[in-house]
Amino acid sequence: MAQDIIDHNRFVLSRVITMIESNKEEHRQKGSEVGYPDIAFWAIPDMRMKILDVALKVMKQRNYRNPARSSIRLGISGPPGVGKSTVAVIAVDPSSQISRGSILGDKTRMNDLAAHPNAYIRPCATGGSLGGLSQHTDEVVLLCETAGFDVILIETVGVGQSEVLVSEVADMFILLLPPVGGDELQGIKRGIMEAADLIVINKADGDLKLLAKKAQSECRSALQFLRGGAGHKWWKSDVLTCSAQTKEGVNDIMSSIETYWKLGDESGDLRLRRGKQRASWMWRKSKEDIVKMLEDCELVTKRAEELEVELRQSEKTPRWAAKELVKVFMKTGKDL
Amino acid sequence: MAQDIIDHNRFVLSRVITMIESNKEEHRQKGSEVGYPDIAFWAIPDMRMKILDVALKVMKQRNYRNPARSSIRLGISGPPGVGKSTVAVIAVDPSSQISRGSILGDKTRMNDLAAHPNAYIRPCATGGSLGGLSQHTDEVVLLCETAGFDVILIETVGVGQSEVLVSEVADMFILLLPPVGGDELQGIKRGIMEAADLIVINKADGDLKLLAKKAQSECRSALQFLRGGAGHKWWKSDVLTCSAQTKEGVNDIMSSIETYWKLGDESGDLRLRRGKQRASWMWRKSKEDIVKMLEDCELVTKRAEELEVELRQSEKTPRWAAKELVKVFMKTGKDL
Repeated sequence: MAQDIIDHNRFVLSRVITMIESNKEEHRQKGSEVGYPDIAFWAIPDMRMKILDVALKVMKQRNYRNPARSSIRLGISGPPGVGKSTVAVIAVDPSSQISRGSILGDKTRMNDLAAHPNAYIRPCATGGSLGGLSQHTDEVVLLCETAGFDVILIETVGVGQSEVLVSEVADMFILLLPPVGGDELQGIKRGIMEAADLIVINKADGDLKLLAKKAQSECRSALQFLRGGAGHKWWKSDVLTCSAQTKEGVNDIMSSIETYWKLGDESGDLRLRRGKQRASWMWRKSKEDIVKMLEDCELVTKRAEELEVELRQSEKTPRWAAKELVKVFMKTGKDL
Repeated sequence: MAQDIIDHNRFVLSRVITMIESNKEEHRQKGSEVGYPDIAFWAIPDMRMKILDVALKVMKQRNYRNPARSSIRLGISGPPGVGKSTVAVIAVDPSSQISRGSILGDKTRMNDLAAHPNAYIRPCATGGSLGGLSQHTDEVVLLCETAGFDVILIETVGVGQSEVLVSEVADMFILLLPPVGGDELQGIKRGIMEAADLIVINKADGDLKLLAKKAQSECRSALQFLRGGAGHKWWKSDVLTCSAQTKEGVNDIMSSIETYWKLGDESGDLRLRRGKQRASWMWRKSKEDIVKMLEDCELVTKRAEELEVELRQSEKTPRWAAKELVKVFMKTGKDL
């Protein structure tokens, strides 16, 4: 199976990603009962772990720790309707050195891209509490790299936590914003602007062009008060405008990405960044695991039922009840 | 202090909310060292718990479990720039029965509202991993009710998890959307539309009016495939359009809210909803607590440092390392 992925078999790639993402005990149960192949696979313990091990080995041979010699991971985020899909499609334009001239023709839309033999589009299940990003995104990215894709775009909707998470799986995080004024920019959280390596104001065409330029200078002055670009010495986050419609400004974005890539590789920082990302995924996953254990713990769910009654009848607060649950849970550690 | 809140002292209200929201050990430490009053308060163990207990007692006397006899909690969400503040200000218009004729004159903007003696605006710290909503939002709402506010608007930016959370603290959850087409609507997550008791397409004026009407009918047909309105028997989620500028459609929204309120109270469902919300806050807080314990556990952080090195050097995945951390953490339960 791992070999199939290495051989660029995207049917197997899809199946493995589905398995990696499935989190439901019932899937595993049902899988072993009815023998449905995709799911029964789950019944084999640690199988997904093994595939990932092989993937990691392959990528190490391909110099996984040196991003310039593996793939480019671009994270793209922004509120709904800002034009992420359009801008992302332009970003893998074949005229650019970055895409290694392999992916796209001009005027391609996301739907056309999906049908292209050299592209693979995967809407990812967001699952639990990770705010728009799957808890397995790092593993999905690893699998796509193993399958030999050069450019990996990780796109999330929404202005919230997911952007910060995207910056934890991407080599470069691009925040796309609509041409809005200062008041509305304040609604965009500090942490997201700080995490952005590049901010792009889209829709800078027609009536909105002036507004976009104004938003650009407001964003720029806001950036001066933030750390910006995750605080690289070799990179200062900038704000650019573009129009996905007229293509104006797109070349500037492309060359900004290329410069970032070059400088980040030379400084060794992109390699370091990937190392740090692996550490933060370790933490993220351990938190998800512990929460899942709490939810699944029988003693805890039993006590929770009692507490729900108490919450209705007595003057106890949810905060107090929460502490009770944690106490019950931690005691189960004794038996391990 | 609790008495001050009951007496509508908003200075004390602000201080207590700040305390409730503060999560930092260092604040507590520093507080007891330098004797800064707001923070030193924190050093007294369980003080915040006690204030909440008193608040809960007061609200019970005021028939807390019967929403119609306490306050109205309206949750409002939507992407940045959709006009949440404007629409929310209109929603507490004095001409409406709901606001009990006490809060606002016409054409009030959020800034004017902040200065109004009968209004209290509190930007809440979002803190950890709750995606735009504070983990103490339920307690802040309780305190505001204790202080006697009739209408409580809980507003979050972003299309993500925070909306679903807002629906867990509000009696009615209103999702505000811009007038965008079907493609872009797909970027809005199912769960959010399902959680909405009412969807409002704002900016239905001028050039955008036609687009808004189109978005309305697309949203309506999307809703047919979803459960909608948290599956009440007495309520079917609807999609309305409005213009915060021309005020067109605002009356329909107001009467939709009033109908919801009336039917929800009569059916007893709003009371049940608050009970369920308390249970889900218990779970939410217990998860936050357990994650914080994991992060703060010395044995875990020590092992994490070793694992970070292993992740850089070996072929181990972050997923494997996460399991190691959880194992170390659960063993600490033995000593409790």
